[in-house]
Amino acid sequence: MQINPLNWKRTIVNIKPYLEKLKERVDKALDRLMPGKDLKPSKIHRAIRYSVFAGGKRLRPILCLMASEITGHSWQKVMPTACGLELIHTYSLIHDDLPCMDDDDFRRGVPTCHKAFDESTAVLAGDALLTLAFELIASNAEIKNVNSSSVVSALRLISRAAGTRGMVGGQVVDIMSEGKKISPAALHFMHMHKTGALITASLEAGAVVAGADKRHIGALRQYGEAVGLAFQLTDDILNLVGDAKKMGKSTGTDLSKKKATYPALYGIDKTREKVGKLIRRAQQELRIFKPEKSEPLRKLALYIQNRDK
Amino acid sequence: MQINPLNWKRTIVNIKPYLEKLKERVDKALDRLMPGKDLKPSKIHRAIRYSVFAGGKRLRPILCLMASEITGHSWQKVMPTACGLELIHTYSLIHDDLPCMDDDDFRRGVPTCHKAFDESTAVLAGDALLTLAFELIASNAEIKNVNSSSVVSALRLISRAAGTRGMVGGQVVDIMSEGKKISPAALHFMHMHKTGALITASLEAGAVVAGADKRHIGALRQYGEAVGLAFQLTDDILNLVGDAKKMGKSTGTDLSKKKATYPALYGIDKTREKVGKLIRRAQQELRIFKPEKSEPLRKLALYIQNRDK
Repeated sequence: MQINPLNWKRTIVNIKPYLEKLKERVDKALDRLMPGKDLKPSKIHRAIRYSVFAGGKRLRPILCLMASEITGHSWQKVMPTACGLELIHTYSLIHDDLPCMDDDDFRRGVPTCHKAFDESTAVLAGDALLTLAFELIASNAEIKNVNSSSVVSALRLISRAAGTRGMVGGQVVDIMSEGKKISPAALHFMHMHKTGALITASLEAGAVVAGADKRHIGALRQYGEAVGLAFQLTDDILNLVGDAKKMGKSTGTDLSKKKATYPALYGIDKTREKVGKLIRRAQQELRIFKPEKSEPLRKLALYIQNRDK
Repeated sequence: MQINPLNWKRTIVNIKPYLEKLKERVDKALDRLMPGKDLKPSKIHRAIRYSVFAGGKRLRPILCLMASEITGHSWQKVMPTACGLELIHTYSLIHDDLPCMDDDDFRRGVPTCHKAFDESTAVLAGDALLTLAFELIASNAEIKNVNSSSVVSALRLISRAAGTRGMVGGQVVDIMSEGKKISPAALHFMHMHKTGALITASLEAGAVVAGADKRHIGALRQYGEAVGLAFQLTDDILNLVGDAKKMGKSTGTDLSKKKATYPALYGIDKTREKVGKLIRRAQQELRIFKPEKSEPLRKLALYIQNRDK
């Protein structure tokens, strides 16, 4: 069956090819919107493209596009913002992998940026991606029927979610708590900030840039907080019991580094139970949308629950 | 004599106290707009404030405020953008000082961020400042009589100037050319990108956010390119012959690291001559403004030429 995200009324969404299609669109847009690898100085542009195109699910940009669609707008309307979100995610991975941070040699099945290039290039590639992210998000104002004031609002919520009151704040707590006993409250703070904040912001920003109404934006924020946490918990479960080959990264690393995770604190069964609850809560938040509009995000929530990579 | 930047028609500007007054205003605004050091996780907020308030001339925010004033608007109108520019500058210093980059232990007379804290905190503090910078710039849209579309334009030109087609691109060439012979063309590229781009963007952004007309914005861009390069050349001269105590940082480091600089390539006399030419060119660009309006930026150009720190 042909999957057409623009016209899902007539289809019952098969989520895997649906996500695949959106991923292709994001990849194409990223290729178009990013500087070419021959632009001087070429080393940094090669490093940036190396990390961005080293794989990845494109979850954040896909959520951004889906948020525009569910609120009755097109995915095209928010594509530059979606790409910006992926660049913020990629920069955070490059810096997290640095020797002074998590010191990881592989990511998505290939050498990390500082291994494939060198440490200074990796620091600068991360800096460059974060900067380019905001340039892309700001450029969304050029798209037809997008208000500058909506772009400014999205930029503010994304930068807040990416900074010390969001992703960076979560990473600080993560690094500080390595090898230490962590309280359930600190663990929750870490999860909600390190991954949850940017995932939530991806949904919110998509709706805000598209021009959705407040009630819809609010529901998507709630949905985002639930699936964001569920996504992190399944990540931790996969790090314990997942298939390293499928995931393209080492497993068991949280255990060997004594990382604070939900399964380490509560066990796998309790964690799976928690994921189930979060997914149901996320789906309930979508009730205010028409069922045919909300079907993809409902199915995506289930997909996150059952993913194996 | 009382210096009043809002009412300089009645005074002949004495540039030193004039800059001092603007610096005070920038410092006050930075303190107000940045998260408090007790906000959790406090380590990162302490690190951020440590680096931002470790001194510094606040040249970029001051240029931004002066650009608003010369085009007939108030400095208050562009203060959040001015602060964002200083945060971008500070982040670049923190990352430049890292062991994998220039590996500097002192900056502005005090230990660098990774020395006062640790390397991972320094990487994250830089990331956080760059992120916060864009949040502040976006927040400028809240100020009375500022259009969202002007803020979006400023955001785009600032991110372009800070990224691989600007500051980061210059830093890449700087690091790649350390200890190597560099061509005059590569040296010019480095200077125009590493310092010039953000200085020029500071002037342009101030005028754009304030709502200045295109001709004024263009003149300020030309002025910025000239004083930006002059600033870098005087920096290189001071690194060779300056007073380390006055500057709060080591001198002679370019020589010992075999850094490519204009004085290293052409000698100090030729460099001073070049600075003189640039300053005259910068001042000529200001002819389209009324003399009483342009006096501060004319005097600032001379001040840059004759600075000893």
